Amino acid sequence: MGEFDLIARYFARAGAVSGSSGSTGSTVALGIGDDCAVLTPAPGHQWLVSTDMLVEGRHFLSTVSPRRLGHKALAVNLSDLAACGGTPRACFLSLALPRVDETFLAGFSEGLFSLADAHGVVLAGGDTTAGPLNINITIMGEVPQGQALLRSGARVDDDLWVSGTLGDARLALEVFRGTVSLPGEAFEAVRQAMELPQPRVALGRALRGLATSAIDVSDGLAGDLGHILRRSGVGARLHLADLPRSAILGAMPEDLQRLCLLTGGDDYELVFTAPAQDRSRVMEAAQASATPVYRIGRIESQPGLRVVDGEGRELDLALQSFDHFKS
Amino acid sequence: MGEFDLIARYFARAGAVSGSSGSTGSTVALGIGDDCAVLTPAPGHQWLVSTDMLVEGRHFLSTVSPRRLGHKALAVNLSDLAACGGTPRACFLSLALPRVDETFLAGFSEGLFSLADAHGVVLAGGDTTAGPLNINITIMGEVPQGQALLRSGARVDDDLWVSGTLGDARLALEVFRGTVSLPGEAFEAVRQAMELPQPRVALGRALRGLATSAIDVSDGLAGDLGHILRRSGVGARLHLADLPRSAILGAMPEDLQRLCLLTGGDDYELVFTAPAQDRSRVMEAAQASATPVYRIGRIESQPGLRVVDGEGRELDLALQSFDHFKS
Repeated sequence: MGEFDLIARYFARAGAVSGSSGSTGSTVALGIGDDCAVLTPAPGHQWLVSTDMLVEGRHFLSTVSPRRLGHKALAVNLSDLAACGGTPRACFLSLALPRVDETFLAGFSEGLFSLADAHGVVLAGGDTTAGPLNINITIMGEVPQGQALLRSGARVDDDLWVSGTLGDARLALEVFRGTVSLPGEAFEAVRQAMELPQPRVALGRALRGLATSAIDVSDGLAGDLGHILRRSGVGARLHLADLPRSAILGAMPEDLQRLCLLTGGDDYELVFTAPAQDRSRVMEAAQASATPVYRIGRIESQPGLRVVDGEGRELDLALQSFDHFKS
Repeated sequence: MGEFDLIARYFARAGAVSGSSGSTGSTVALGIGDDCAVLTPAPGHQWLVSTDMLVEGRHFLSTVSPRRLGHKALAVNLSDLAACGGTPRACFLSLALPRVDETFLAGFSEGLFSLADAHGVVLAGGDTTAGPLNINITIMGEVPQGQALLRSGARVDDDLWVSGTLGDARLALEVFRGTVSLPGEAFEAVRQAMELPQPRVALGRALRGLATSAIDVSDGLAGDLGHILRRSGVGARLHLADLPRSAILGAMPEDLQRLCLLTGGDDYELVFTAPAQDRSRVMEAAQASATPVYRIGRIESQPGLRVVDGEGRELDLALQSFDHFKS
């Protein structure tokens, strides 16, 4: 099967080519099949754009099913968009494959389209080539002019919040690495957290005009929160006991819990800040988006991140975020 | 050197972070350093988006210099934008590298930024990771509403045009493959055609409202022209003798010339159609954009591509475009 047949069979759905470049009122005026996709911006909106490249052994294990890999490749991009409060519109997939593997392609495209449909995203273009397995997705979304959630807006005395639970994906990775063992059902649950992350798109949108800063947790809470602190010129105090975790992770030894919660990575939850007087509005946004959120600390003027235990003692942690060229 | 240091040193230039998401009037309101880039659309314009993935051995040889590779990676994307008549605005780079190689990164980023600056493109975001060498660029540009040049607009009796010269890049590849040998200076000239293609952005813009269809020649003239013909529901007659070629290629054996001209690929010239009564306007557009163009044939109602020689005889060529999963 050649490149064009491959695109036609697995990726060029009727919905992706929806009109001429002259049409108005639809975001994707022209999708797969020309040199470029043509996107019509909605009046009064800005575009948000992010891109993520996934490589085997770095971002996923060879044991992941093609369907879950298709899901995850799009999910990590949607998560970046969620962190900015964007409404997803279109994505572009570049795929290098060692050989044309129809089982892989069928599963991968199914997983990708299933999540794309759930979020109203059109696959508007891409590229395929032979080469070592590599998946790159560029995601585009919209936000009303000036309402993008950025990393730079956290202010002293803001509350610090996080969605969902943290650390399960890292716990699953440790099981794969053989440093931890879990009973079958528990393993399947944390493995699902690693392989089928749910991007917090609805929460991100609900936080527009409310959160002062936001980021998604992809490289570990401590490292990603560090980006907010540096770009906002502030520090933070984090309460370890308040970090939300699954019952499975909560039953693990303390040091493993800390590792997974603070430096785990692959969580794809949102960490964000909001003024203390807006607590009830944050809870309303969480309810409206059907996403649990937890208050985990506070922004302070002193730079840096301080993590305190249940007794208020500051932990001495040599925290490191996951760096794709280091670990 | 870690991922963030790498980005900071080679790719995060001051120009790429130019303001807050609330600013208006500039296209890239926020670049590298947040979860997403924020782009402000110009009123009355649409966005054009294209993405290309480059893999060693498929799209470039290991002998290419990092500087030329940085140029070419962006050039092939700019060429897609040129084919749609777009004005380049922003690009996003994903880069997988086996290891942090500062000589490579310094050269690569220099080549990329040099071409980006020449076309007013901002590197607005991206991703870096460890992995087998892989380069993916997503390019975004703008076009006035409804003026994108598409593949689907060719009409019967339109003239068929091409820019520049064809076939030199393929000739260089044949030298690398050892099937042809060339003297040093001639080799350097065709090698430059292969490694430093000049995207026809100015010509593409000048053809807005004039060309009825356009595509860039990346996989070979016959194959790429085939896309125009199929999407426009027409056929074409092409005059082999009229295909523009360098003096170097023109001195090669006839069959090698045909191979390079018709199925060569990597040309990054524009092939386009325009009404016969607009010949002088096409020549004006060529002059305004300082790009040579040549009339090479005509659109016909009979589907398919017919190539005729100097005596008007139809050639029996089993034409195949370059397919990344076949050859």
